[in-house]
Amino acid sequence: MIILGIDPGLERIGCGIIRVEGSRITPVHYCLIQTPKVVLTDRLRLIHDQMAELLDTYKPDAIATERQLFAQNKTTAMDVAKALGVILLTTQQYGIAWAEYSPPEIKQAVVGNGAADKKQVQFMVTKLLGLQSTPKPDDVADGLAIAITHAMRYRMARIAGG
Amino acid sequence: MIILGIDPGLERIGCGIIRVEGSRITPVHYCLIQTPKVVLTDRLRLIHDQMAELLDTYKPDAIATERQLFAQNKTTAMDVAKALGVILLTTQQYGIAWAEYSPPEIKQAVVGNGAADKKQVQFMVTKLLGLQSTPKPDDVADGLAIAITHAMRYRMARIAGG
Repeated sequence: MIILGIDPGLERIGCGIIRVEGSRITPVHYCLIQTPKVVLTDRLRLIHDQMAELLDTYKPDAIATERQLFAQNKTTAMDVAKALGVILLTTQQYGIAWAEYSPPEIKQAVVGNGAADKKQVQFMVTKLLGLQSTPKPDDVADGLAIAITHAMRYRMARIAGG
Repeated sequence: MIILGIDPGLERIGCGIIRVEGSRITPVHYCLIQTPKVVLTDRLRLIHDQMAELLDTYKPDAIATERQLFAQNKTTAMDVAKALGVILLTTQQYGIAWAEYSPPEIKQAVVGNGAADKKQVQFMVTKLLGLQSTPKPDDVADGLAIAITHAMRYRMARIAGG
C-alpha cells in the first residue's frame, strides 16, 4: 500500500510518500510543492497540476492530510483551506481514498504522545523510515508524519476488524 | 459582456449571470448549485463539475465572488473556503477573469450604502434587472448582486481610465 501524506498550504505543501507492507514502512519519495506569489487562481491551478503529476507518478492508494487548526492567522487559514479544497478535488478526480488527522492524532501515532513537540516527531519520522538525516524542510517531515499516521491507524483498524 | 456573480458555499452556491451592454444590465440566468451531504471530496467534485457546466453553457467573460467574512462560524468558514478554492480553480481552467468584492462593497455598489440591509439589496437587484419578483433563495439574489457590483465597478474603471 502506498500512502501520500500532505501538510497543506497555499505557498508550500509538504508531501511524503511511503510504502507499507505488513509491519514494514519504507520511504518512497518526499518533496515540497511550492507556488510563486502570483494571482490566487493561478496558484490554485499550479497546485492542481503539480498534485496531479505526483498522483500520476506515485499512484498512492490513500491520501492523508493534516486537519487545520483555528489558532493560526485567519487569512492564512482561509488560503490554506482554498488550497486544501483543490488538493481534495484532485484526490477525488484520481479516485483515491482520503483521511484526515488532527495534529494531536499525528503526534500520538508517531511519537506515542499527543503533546509531543516538532523535534520529537521529526526524530521518530527519521527513525521509523530509516533515514540518514531529518527530511527538510519541516513541511516535508510533517507530510511523512501524516503518511505514517495513516499507516498506523489503518493497521490498527485492520487488527481491530480482524 | 457576460458576468457570473457567485455567493460561495459548500452546501449552496448562489449563481447570478447578467449581460452588460453599455449602461444596460439584463439578467441571463440565475440558479442555486447544491450539494448533498456526501463525503467532502465528492461534494467538491460535484461543485467542480456543476461549475464547469455553468461556464460551458453561459461562457461568462468574468466571474466575481463575495469575499468571506471572518465573523461566521469557523468550521463553516473553512468549508466555504475549500469550495471557493475549487470554484476559483475551475474559473482558471476556463481562462476566465476573476474579481472579489467585500459585502460592504457590494452593498455600496447596488444600493449606494455600504451598510444597507439584505432587503434593500434584494429590492435593488430586482429593480435594476427589471424582474417581476425578488430572486429566491437569498444566495441567488446575492449572486446577482455580486455580478451587478462587478458590472458597476468595471464601468467606473473604464470611465476613470478613459
